Amino acid sequence: MSKVALADLNAADEAGFMAALGDVYEHAPWVAQAASRQRPFVTLAALHNAMMAAVRAAPADQQVALIKGHPDLAGKAARAGAMTVDSKAEQASAGLDRLSETEFAQFHRLNNAYREKFGIPFIICARRHSKDSILQQFERRLQNSAAAETKMALGEIFRIAALRLDQRLEAADRLDVHGRLSTHVLDTHSGRPAAGVAIELLELSVSGEPRVIARGMSNRDGRTDAPLIRERPLPIGRYELRFHVGDYFARLKARQDDPPFLDVVPVRFAIAEPEGHYHVPLLVTPWSYSTYRGS
Amino acid sequence: MSKVALADLNAADEAGFMAALGDVYEHAPWVAQAASRQRPFVTLAALHNAMMAAVRAAPADQQVALIKGHPDLAGKAARAGAMTVDSKAEQASAGLDRLSETEFAQFHRLNNAYREKFGIPFIICARRHSKDSILQQFERRLQNSAAAETKMALGEIFRIAALRLDQRLEAADRLDVHGRLSTHVLDTHSGRPAAGVAIELLELSVSGEPRVIARGMSNRDGRTDAPLIRERPLPIGRYELRFHVGDYFARLKARQDDPPFLDVVPVRFAIAEPEGHYHVPLLVTPWSYSTYRGS
Amino acid sequence: MSKVALADLNAADEAGFMAALGDVYEHAPWVAQAASRQRPFVTLAALHNAMMAAVRAAPADQQVALIKGHPDLAGKAARAGAMTVDSKAEQASAGLDRLSETEFAQFHRLNNAYREKFGIPFIICARRHSKDSILQQFERRLQNSAAAETKMALGEIFRIAALRLDQRLEAADRLDVHGRLSTHVLDTHSGRPAAGVAIELLELSVSGEPRVIARGMSNRDGRTDAPLIRERPLPIGRYELRFHVGDYFARLKARQDDPPFLDVVPVRFAIAEPEGHYHVPLLVTPWSYSTYRGS
Amino acid sequence: MSKVALADLNAADEAGFMAALGDVYEHAPWVAQAASRQRPFVTLAALHNAMMAAVRAAPADQQVALIKGHPDLAGKAARAGAMTVDSKAEQASAGLDRLSETEFAQFHRLNNAYREKFGIPFIICARRHSKDSILQQFERRLQNSAAAETKMALGEIFRIAALRLDQRLEAADRLDVHGRLSTHVLDTHSGRPAAGVAIELLELSVSGEPRVIARGMSNRDGRTDAPLIRERPLPIGRYELRFHVGDYFARLKARQDDPPFLDVVPVRFAIAEPEGHYHVPLLVTPWSYSTYRGS
Repeated sequence: MSKVALADLNAADEAGFMAALGDVYEHAPWVAQAASRQRPFVTLAALHNAMMAAVRAAPADQQVALIKGHPDLAGKAARAGAMTVDSKAEQASAGLDRLSETEFAQFHRLNNAYREKFGIPFIICARRHSKDSILQQFERRLQNSAAAETKMALGEIFRIAALRLDQRLEAADRLDVHGRLSTHVLDTHSGRPAAGVAIELLELSVSGEPRVIARGMSNRDGRTDAPLIRERPLPIGRYELRFHVGDYFARLKARQDDPPFLDVVPVRFAIAEPEGHYHVPLLVTPWSYSTYRGS
Repeated sequence: MSKVALADLNAADEAGFMAALGDVYEHAPWVAQAASRQRPFVTLAALHNAMMAAVRAAPADQQVALIKGHPDLAGKAARAGAMTVDSKAEQASAGLDRLSETEFAQFHRLNNAYREKFGIPFIICARRHSKDSILQQFERRLQNSAAAETKMALGEIFRIAALRLDQRLEAADRLDVHGRLSTHVLDTHSGRPAAGVAIELLELSVSGEPRVIARGMSNRDGRTDAPLIRERPLPIGRYELRFHVGDYFARLKARQDDPPFLDVVPVRFAIAEPEGHYHVPLLVTPWSYSTYRGS
Repeated sequence: MSKVALADLNAADEAGFMAALGDVYEHAPWVAQAASRQRPFVTLAALHNAMMAAVRAAPADQQVALIKGHPDLAGKAARAGAMTVDSKAEQASAGLDRLSETEFAQFHRLNNAYREKFGIPFIICARRHSKDSILQQFERRLQNSAAAETKMALGEIFRIAALRLDQRLEAADRLDVHGRLSTHVLDTHSGRPAAGVAIELLELSVSGEPRVIARGMSNRDGRTDAPLIRERPLPIGRYELRFHVGDYFARLKARQDDPPFLDVVPVRFAIAEPEGHYHVPLLVTPWSYSTYRGS
Repeated sequence: MSKVALADLNAADEAGFMAALGDVYEHAPWVAQAASRQRPFVTLAALHNAMMAAVRAAPADQQVALIKGHPDLAGKAARAGAMTVDSKAEQASAGLDRLSETEFAQFHRLNNAYREKFGIPFIICARRHSKDSILQQFERRLQNSAAAETKMALGEIFRIAALRLDQRLEAADRLDVHGRLSTHVLDTHSGRPAAGVAIELLELSVSGEPRVIARGMSNRDGRTDAPLIRERPLPIGRYELRFHVGDYFARLKARQDDPPFLDVVPVRFAIAEPEGHYHVPLLVTPWSYSTYRGS
């Protein structure tokens, strides 16, 4: 999807502006309309702030209506294909389109419990979460007060909107909505970057099998050519990096036992800050390794 | 099983000696008989050497008969319960009593191919191997010459005999038939041994699920009270240690993210020397760790 | 000096007991006399406790007299050779017999300031300190109240007495007066202990040159045959271990640059607990190393 | 000194070209003259190659004259101020202008021995060396044959010329004559870059005191704002980085002993590749650290 320049939106008539941004807030074109009247915006941040201000300035019942305009997570609308394109993609990003029957039933139960307690749908910015962390948030937030959840829901709606703006618009600035996960393999046996180490990134899950979400190969600098995750929020969750160092050292003809003491090195870690920069390197010899949260 | 003192065997009549050691060499009491005549033995090693010398001095056809006296690995004898008690326990130690139908078929096929090529059963000291490494040895040794395999079979029979002697006899010396796997958790965040870290040792397998073979808890010195494997050969194979450091640092109230960057740290490694001492420690903070083959 | 058995002291007449222990408390035989009457002692700890109890039970002026019976640190008595043999050896252990004129003047000034403020000599268990830490304690304790310093002086006298008892007596138990400093060199390039690495331990000093206080060579286990410091308190102070790894890897013919990236690796650390166990290992390749406070 | 654009030199008349580059080869304007006739040069590399080709194409006696045009290292010309400006700065970069009398005598002796054996002055690209490594090269090269030393001398002259060209000219390309030394402090106690750690870089010397050659402070990324050495060759030699981590952890109020186990961490290493990129990071907690040659 090619991006629209912010400058063009500043110059567009209201219909053009609404066509581009009317649905940034789900089923709530009035948010974009309010922002439209405050044009021009020099930065994406200014536009985002204006839209958030419009929501905050709205009467309470209009805010609740905005919240209620959102679909359930992994709910009937999803099954029936009745969600907006954006909602659909967002829920898919957290794997909510790949639920087992058991998981679907679990979401169904939590959705109902949440609606029963708070009278609104459970809203969470799905792109910032894995399925596991959505379920964990669900359980936790069910303990909150109604007032806290209204506030929480608006906060998540703002995060969803920020990501939609980021995806659609080109501007001089960027919203701080992206994280980055990178790695680096240093061969401390030879004192140089380890080139040609196959690397996999898996998303772990409490209930299901690990799922490979990225593959790479270390280059001459011991890095993958691009970060393993970039240009999106890092979903809160648990991950495993797998470094195929046994093959690497075999190619180097380093002394190894048979079978080699180290072969595929797993590094298991969690991401807690979707907008953070996670650098998870490996310092490795055929007999030892270190890893750490770097920067 | 209480052990017999070597001194008592030195003093015993031949019937007593044979009752104790007649079956150390499978269906080959003549080996023990030959040794019996050379008593007394000051050390276990001397006894073991005398028995090996008797085998080596035997005519080729008697050696082949000795080899042929051994049961197939995971073969029909095993299924029918027709093995000696020792053979049964030895094969069970490598998990050969827990084969899936597919694996049983694989062993059947390999046994037949081996017998067809060499005219003898495939012999391996099962206590020194995991199922994976037995299969790997099977494939490799099928490539050998008949002469090499006869020699290899005798070598494995000597290893089996050494372990049987070690299990049955008490003497001033020990045969070098045991390995040791130990670990140590050092909390480099606090500068002291990490006490109370739950630790699991799993045996990994190409075909099946990892299997927990030992559990422990680090004590005040950061060590388990006893080595994770001891008083036996370390089966050649691949393993995973799991260190529950997230819970440990939570109890210490160390700053951690939610979810914690590190929770259960897996360390995957292979054992290649059954009689070796493997020390696989973990140096760990909430944000980093190192491991290595220590001593 | 051969040790006396506690059992023999229990059986001795009072003259024998006093000959052995009359001077454990400097110029205060009444402490040993009080203890003598409570014999027999099953343990060294019981004897030590009885002597401390006698001091604590004494009237305040007798306690002050006990304190005043001690010589100045690095004072005129030391220069004139007028100290007891024990005091002389204790002060020498902290290097107070090797002071420069400047340092001697500094001690002179501090001794006078301390006597002027508190009316007693500055007492510290010199075997638990380096010259640097004695000077630091001097400066700090000059800030205390007189009551605090009387208490502190008695505490240090008890430590001095404990060390004297430990040196003279043989018993089933040991007093907890010794620390231990050890090291270990692990070659993570080859996956085994590094044998034959020359190791030096130096005591660092604010004012003077580093002084080599122990030398060793790593054995087949990567350890020195004996701990670098043992059977005595570890003097509080700053130290440097030097590991000659460049020569080691050259003998192994490991690939190294010319000059080698690592040659003599210095590890600088402080000891703060004289009765602690400090293990300061080195994990090293020709291109990397790690060290930590181990246990 | 502002740089001249290569394009301008291409367009200049021969007098202009010679004014700029006539002395790139010491007392040998014929080298620049030969190159001048081959203009234009698209790249600095092409110009450098053309000049080297001119030298290589010259008759042997002209090559020897070129070699003989160079001053002794730390010789009488240096003392008398009779060297070219470039030679003076180059020798100063290796500390040859700060020799003790003993060192001066040592150079004098080596210069004479070298001239006596080979009939030419000892030539080395001083910017790529420390005083220690120049002396070491001197001793080693004295063992060579005359033919090898003629070749070696020309090689060093080419390196000197490359650095002079790099300093004087601006072009699209750069000659590969610079190295880089950088560091990075990662606080693995807190899981983030260590900001505000004072760092010193010292050049070590066999004969003299360590000399501070750079100071820095780690920034929010745990790095110094600029590499510790850059835009020049890294002098072959031995170095020590000092990281003031005790103060850093004290500011963070991390638990530390008194005195702290780690205070100023020294990392001693050698540089062997003047054009290499050396990254020497520190991963540190109050109780442990790691360092390695990174990239």
